[in-house]
Order: sequence, then structure tokens, then C-alpha cells
Amino acid sequence: MSTLLRTQGVTAPSGFRATGVAAGIKASGALDLALVFNEGPDHSAAGVFTRNKVKAAPVLWSQQVLTTGKLRAVILNSGGANACTGPGGFQDTHATAEAVAAALSNWGTETGAIEVAVCSTGLIGDRLPMNKVLAGVSEIVHEMAGGMTGGKEAARAIMTTDTVPKQSALHHDDKWTVGGMAKGAGMLAPSLATMLCVITTDAVAGPEALDAALRRATSRTFDRLDVDGSCSTNDTVLLLSSGASEVTPSQAELDDAVLRVCDDLCAQLQADAEGVTKRVLVTVTGAAGEEEALTAARVIARDSLVKTALFGSDPNWGRVLAAVGMAPVALDADRITVSFNGFPVCVDSVGAPGAREVDLSGEDIAVVVDLGVGEASASIRTTDLSHAYVEENSAYSS
Amino acid sequence: MSTLLRTQGVTAPSGFRATGVAAGIKASGALDLALVFNEGPDHSAAGVFTRNKVKAAPVLWSQQVLTTGKLRAVILNSGGANACTGPGGFQDTHATAEAVAAALSNWGTETGAIEVAVCSTGLIGDRLPMNKVLAGVSEIVHEMAGGMTGGKEAARAIMTTDTVPKQSALHHDDKWTVGGMAKGAGMLAPSLATMLCVITTDAVAGPEALDAALRRATSRTFDRLDVDGSCSTNDTVLLLSSGASEVTPSQAELDDAVLRVCDDLCAQLQADAEGVTKRVLVTVTGAAGEEEALTAARVIARDSLVKTALFGSDPNWGRVLAAVGMAPVALDADRITVSFNGFPVCVDSVGAPGAREVDLSGEDIAVVVDLGVGEASASIRTTDLSHAYVEENSAYSS
Repeated sequence: MSTLLRTQGVTAPSGFRATGVAAGIKASGALDLALVFNEGPDHSAAGVFTRNKVKAAPVLWSQQVLTTGKLRAVILNSGGANACTGPGGFQDTHATAEAVAAALSNWGTETGAIEVAVCSTGLIGDRLPMNKVLAGVSEIVHEMAGGMTGGKEAARAIMTTDTVPKQSALHHDDKWTVGGMAKGAGMLAPSLATMLCVITTDAVAGPEALDAALRRATSRTFDRLDVDGSCSTNDTVLLLSSGASEVTPSQAELDDAVLRVCDDLCAQLQADAEGVTKRVLVTVTGAAGEEEALTAARVIARDSLVKTALFGSDPNWGRVLAAVGMAPVALDADRITVSFNGFPVCVDSVGAPGAREVDLSGEDIAVVVDLGVGEASASIRTTDLSHAYVEENSAYSS
Repeated sequence: MSTLLRTQGVTAPSGFRATGVAAGIKASGALDLALVFNEGPDHSAAGVFTRNKVKAAPVLWSQQVLTTGKLRAVILNSGGANACTGPGGFQDTHATAEAVAAALSNWGTETGAIEVAVCSTGLIGDRLPMNKVLAGVSEIVHEMAGGMTGGKEAARAIMTTDTVPKQSALHHDDKWTVGGMAKGAGMLAPSLATMLCVITTDAVAGPEALDAALRRATSRTFDRLDVDGSCSTNDTVLLLSSGASEVTPSQAELDDAVLRVCDDLCAQLQADAEGVTKRVLVTVTGAAGEEEALTAARVIARDSLVKTALFGSDPNWGRVLAAVGMAPVALDADRITVSFNGFPVCVDSVGAPGAREVDLSGEDIAVVVDLGVGEASASIRTTDLSHAYVEENSAYSS
């Protein structure tokens, strides 16, 4: 018996503390600095990072840190991505990790900077106000509390254009738990998203087991969310285990639990994406292989004309065919079938009766496209392209 | 001495007649059927077509016709793409070509259907109203008989969401001429555009010379226009020569003249693109090769976050770095340089002083990105992503 809750996050599993504070990085005075602390007894960890060649300083730092397979803490800030900031920006990240390590050591837990991952999100290109960040680090270690309240504060502190904090916790047989928090609303694309995500568990699991579970889960969830085809410089997903439950799940059990929490966080990201008015699931079936199905689904999900039509609740299936016809995959151009919300609108590449009258006025739209050449299928979650998306991204330097 | 004029189009060269009529295909009653007729003495022709795997019936027909290297006439309609219409749609195209051939033969020029190219543009997925199309064909051949100035009427008759007709004519030493017309406003992307274009010349040139000139020109012009990354099922560019000038230009002269007319038509398409408020030229320099430069420029030109920032006149260069970092090309992530309208906003992947204050309020924006690894460069013409683009494509089933 397992239970999934959205009222709890990274502090749901035993052995974790977290909180968020307003350090003054954001001009608005909102929460902008979060800490997740693993009390142990174990400190195994794994991470996956953006595939963008332009990587933010905190990504470069955390990738190095994760080579040890061990983490005691994660410090996260919103209000600035610390990307494209040169060697000075990297020194800022290093100094932040050093400050967290010193504060934790001071508080009674001997910690090295190499045990502290750093995540940043916000505008690309500006240096962080380090006096505020470092003062915030001292404050946040002091404030850090156990229980679910702290988890929610942390989830709030990493928000940028997000309108709600995203948390998820899966309690497994009342014996062990996986919890997580995530942020991300725009610049959401293949290689994760503009997205920070920290997942915690009190299961006993070594770095290799965590790494396997995390890679499997992210490839099926965050990697299949594509709001606008734009991939961030800062994407980071971390998984930390405390071992505090003293339960050692099988790899399959761990995989499944991490996948379910990632999937739930992913659905929350989709639902809160910038300018979203429709939640769209594009599924491609009848493909020669899963990778081809995924590629075709992504091409459709990224097509501006498909996305604007869906914003207008217009069952314009011709744009779906035009989009998929450019996907670099095998397809039978005379045997493509499309349905909207289960209604067949195009059969064997020709419009079906009633296709122009399908009602797409609801908030959820399922697009299924059969390529007519094989048995494989895959889905991409996306959103429509709305006036609100244009407004948010033309008026807000993010 | 050569002169480029936008007041003339396909009838500028000797030996061509054209016109446009309102056949009733469009509910609005606007012009919707165009004919371009080559009186000879030569009838050489070449064509390039969409790379979309889903090809409209008229594309499949015209590709077959062009294997002969010869054309007497091109019939074009707006108000319906005749794409995804199955075998019935292909029969409609064939019947249209037969009707044009019969009407021309009746008029005194013995013509076979195999000498008639067909182009269609409009909504994908609906059959054309063939009674109106066929009646229109009889009318247009009659109307065309009337005069040599119908080029502008023809250019008007192929418009869909275009707001102005696009024509261009290059008079070369007052001895021979290249003229052209084009339509296309949305679904404009790599493999040409949702675009129909007919170019005429009175130069003496065989099919091979025309084909070489046309491929060279389209690869450098229409193929480098990318409004929304969406590639149509109907893209067609045709080049017809009448030989009526009795001048045989060198291949280089022909190449240059066709390129200049294509380039001018391409600039007109960009300026009239759906929802355009900014004309954007993205140039990538310092690339390992021209193809890589082109790929990187296209990735930047397609990025929704870059395009919405430019709509907002926001010099958000960080989004340019995030976009180019995902391009599958060689780059030095620490040596990327970006300028907006000649002002360096990012040097060696770090923001330059004053970068956030660059004025992008004008209608033209030049983005130059140096990848720092080689000597090659290439440009893509694009536009911003505006509220008007979203409005036009969500409210109009096109």
C-alpha cells in the first residue's frame, strides 16, 4: 500500500530538514533561498543535469560534487541563475558551498564544501548579490527545522514565475518514503526543464541504486515535458537518501517510487507552465521504435501552429500532419491517423467526418497520432501557446 | 546595369501572360485563382518542392510534371491546400491540369495536362469545390487572353493571410529580365515556407541551367527564412523560361539574377509574416562550417523565449546563449559573443557593460552570435513572436 500526497515534500522522509528564507536576492522580498539537509545516517546521492552546452556555474559545481556519490546538503536560490557569469560566478558558487559547510559545521555537523550541492534559478547573465546570499546562508542554517512545514518553505523559496509550490511525497507501506520538490514554468524542454528538483528518501540505497532510479525516472518524466522547446542552462535534479527508515527496498521498488514522485511533480510543472490554458498530452503510436515515437511526439508538441490552434480550441488536424511530416522518423504518409480526445479526426491521412466540429474547449487535450509503420509508442506533455505565454515572456526579463 | 522593381512580377519578362480571378473558392469573394502562361518560344522549367513527408496533391502532381523539364502554364489557387485529401484530392489536381490544358488548346495553344503545374494553398484537409475551380479555369484562360499586365492580379490571387502581394522583377541591361511573385506568411520554415512562388524569365536557358540557378537561389533565400519553424505540405517554387529575349546569359549571370529576385521576394515574405512586429536577422559567425552556422542560427531563430523577448524589445541575451547551447554544433561555451544591432551584449559568454540598456525598440533587429571555434558564418531571417501571431493562428483555421 502506498500513498501519494502533495501536501508534503522533501521533509516527508525521515532524516531530512529543510526551510526557505527571504535573503533579499529577489527585489520583491519573497522567499529566495532554500536549504535541504540530510541528517543521515547515510548520505548517498545522485544527480542529473542539463544537456545544454552552456552550463551555469552551480551546474558545473554540483556535477563535480556528485562524482563522490555523496551529499549532506543542497542550497538553492531563486532570483538569479548565476549562468554566463564567468570565473567570478563560479567562485560565487564555491563560496556559497563553503559558507553552507562552515555554518553546518558550526551548528554541530562536520561538513565540507564538497558535500554541498548548489542550485540557482532566475535571470541568466547577472552576478548574484553575494553579501545577501552569504548572510542568508547563516540565517537559513539557523532557521532550519524538521517536519513538513520546512519542506513547503523550501519549495516556495525556489519559485520564479511558478504560481504555486510543487511538492510530492510517496509513503510506501508506512515504512519508507520518497519526497520531492520542484520548480519550473518556462524554458521547459527536453533536457529536463528550467527546473530545479530535489528528491529525498529515507530508504537505504547506495549512490549507484539512486543514480539508476533517478536516470530511469527523469528519462520518462521531466525529459518528456516540453513547454516551449527551450532548454535551460541550470536544470538540476538531485536525489538524496538518508537511510533513516532502515528499509532497503529492491531496485524495482525504488525505481517505481522515484518514478511516481517525479511523474507527479512533472504533472504539477505542466499544470503551472507559463501562460498555460490547456494541458496537452501528445502520444505517438505505430512508430518503428520508442525513440522515433518520442521524436515525433516532440516535433508535434513544439509546433507553434499546433499549439496556437489548441489555444483556440480549434481541431485543426492538418497542422498536426504538417508538423509530423517534418519529423525525422519513419512514417507512412498515406496511413497517418489522428485523434483528438478520442475522436478520430484523420484516418489514413484524410479528414474524418465531423472532424472540424470536435469540442476542444476543455482544459485537457489528448492528441494521438498513429504513424502506421510499427508498434512503438511514447508521449510528450506540453501546453498550448497563448497570449499569456507571449505576455509573460516579453514583459518579464527572466 | 540591372534594375530591381517591386511594381512588376511574373509578366515583366517577355513571353508571359498572367492574371487572377475570383472563382468563388474563398468565401470572401476575393481573388483566388491565378494563371501564369508561357507563350514561348521556349518552355523550359525547373521546380523545388517542400521536404515535408506529407505532401499535398498538387505537389505530388507538379513534381511528376517537372521531370520533363518543360511547362507551358502554372495554375494556382488559394482558399484550400488540397493536402491530406487522399486519392480524390489527387484526381482533383489532375482534373484541374486537364481543364487548363483543354482551355489553352481551345484558345489556340495545343497543350497537354503534363505541361501544366498546379499549386494550392489554404486550409489543409478539405477537398476543393471543383465546380468552382473548373468554371474558374475557363474564365481565367479567357481573361488572360486580354493582356500582359495581369502579373499583379495573379500575385493577389494567391494570397492567404498575406496582407500585400509580393512581386519582384530584375531587368538586366535592358536585354533580359527575371520576374517573380510569391505568397506566404505563416507556416514559414526551413524547407521553403507555406509558400508558393513562380519566377519567370525571358532568358534562353535549358531545364538544367534553370534547375541549377533555382536550387542555388532557394537554398540561400527561402530555405533561410524561418518564421515559426513550421514547414508546409504545399511549398512550391517554379522557374519558367520563355527565351523570348533571345539572350543567353552565362550560368553565373542567370544564377545571380534568380538569386536577387528570390532574395527580394524573401524579404517581402519576412516583412509581411503573420503577426510580425520585428524583422530579425540572426547571423552566426565563428562556426566550424557553414552548415553548422546555419543550424545554430536556425535554433536561435526558432526559440520561443528569444522571439518573445525581441517582441518585448528586451535585450535578453541570456536566452540567446541558452538557445545556442542546445544547437547540435561545435562551440566554445566560454567564448561565445553576442551583439544586438552592433552593440556587444555578451563577450566570452559573460554580459557586457550596458547590455541590459540596448535599445531594441525599432522594427529591425540584427542578432550576431560568434561561436568562437571557426571561420564560417550564415544567417536566418525570422520574426518576433507576438500577440498578433497567437491571435491570427488561434482564431483562423488555416
